Amino acid sequence: MPDVIEVPDEPARSAAAGEELRTGTVDLLGAIAYGALTAYERLAQDGAGAPTLADKVTLATMAGRQVDHLERVRDRLGELGADLMEAMTPFHRAFDDFHAHTRPKDWLEGLMWVYVGSGFADDFYAEVATHVDPATRALVEEVLSDTRHDDFVVEHVRAGIEADPRVAGRLALWGRRLVGEALSQAQRVAVDRAGLTTLLMGAEGVDVVAVSRTFSRLVENHAARLRRLGLQP
Amino acid sequence: MPDVIEVPDEPARSAAAGEELRTGTVDLLGAIAYGALTAYERLAQDGAGAPTLADKVTLATMAGRQVDHLERVRDRLGELGADLMEAMTPFHRAFDDFHAHTRPKDWLEGLMWVYVGSGFADDFYAEVATHVDPATRALVEEVLSDTRHDDFVVEHVRAGIEADPRVAGRLALWGRRLVGEALSQAQRVAVDRAGLTTLLMGAEGVDVVAVSRTFSRLVENHAARLRRLGLQP
Repeated sequence: MPDVIEVPDEPARSAAAGEELRTGTVDLLGAIAYGALTAYERLAQDGAGAPTLADKVTLATMAGRQVDHLERVRDRLGELGADLMEAMTPFHRAFDDFHAHTRPKDWLEGLMWVYVGSGFADDFYAEVATHVDPATRALVEEVLSDTRHDDFVVEHVRAGIEADPRVAGRLALWGRRLVGEALSQAQRVAVDRAGLTTLLMGAEGVDVVAVSRTFSRLVENHAARLRRLGLQP
Repeated sequence: MPDVIEVPDEPARSAAAGEELRTGTVDLLGAIAYGALTAYERLAQDGAGAPTLADKVTLATMAGRQVDHLERVRDRLGELGADLMEAMTPFHRAFDDFHAHTRPKDWLEGLMWVYVGSGFADDFYAEVATHVDPATRALVEEVLSDTRHDDFVVEHVRAGIEADPRVAGRLALWGRRLVGEALSQAQRVAVDRAGLTTLLMGAEGVDVVAVSRTFSRLVENHAARLRRLGLQP
């Protein structure tokens, strides 16, 4: 028996708006699931090139975490009466393109990809999740707060730059490339999926200024991550 | 504070035998951990060639399960005051060689690899785990009983044979190759690691007849798995 998604604050909300909210919620979960699946694949590939076996083990645990997120989102979709495969479909293109356009050339670029790419995606989900039902929001917040491997990435990238300061310029460029591609895919998703945009904007409907403010916040958070890596944003 | 491994039944057991039991327990956990890490890598690679996205998701969850086993074994090693990386070291060669000598050529061979290879390894661990301390045994049994994906493999391999009966001969040969390689690596490990052999044999010490009986059981279980796949062992 699927959960009913509660529509907060507005008992007089129309059936159409309620349906859009449901679509948006399923979209959000579908995006997180497909994002987790593709991040798992990236981490599995990067792990094969890890410099030490200990690094390989850490990458494996990071990949395992993505699978865990995928499974939990799949279960929540099931509770909502939605199908995982269908929910992921609208996001194939954005994530596949993102991956095709951002192939790390080495171990450090791979680590940055995880930290910068997942960080950006998580911020985007957090913006959208403000307006979903409480159970979904709790799940999304739990998944997003799973930053236990950030320190591993930050330490390794900083150590890599210390060992060879010339890589800093290349990695800073790489960071700009990652955020540029992430922004363009996020914008595509926001334009294509009305339900998601409704969530992003709240009940007041789409507002170009609000959209642009959201994207500004995403870019600011990205810059903070680059600075934490010791890189010029 | 590391757990003390209880030595059952024999209060007068010598310190040397106790130490051998401890080494054997750490060996068993190290073998399971490295086996899980390499199975995760195999599954991650196979997933990239999965025929459908749904199959890819299933392979990802199977890979995630291996990471989960790795982490739980790492935690148990920590409780025993042992280090994961050190515990895995003696098993690099056996598993790496097994992987190098058994590269699946397609999706069906990959599925069989998982079912037949993991099945054999799990049976081997089960033989060894009879004599370890209760907490370790409980963990190993829980990890080994995690056969929730067996049906997926059996259904897909059977469907593959039904779709093209000519593959049955090739897959049966592949099964023989897998068990031959698994046996030779298991024998190598048993010869190299005295602690493991002690566990395998129990307190009575190494006995060639008992060793050969153990390996007979492993081969019989392997044959049962092949028959379940619809293949001639």
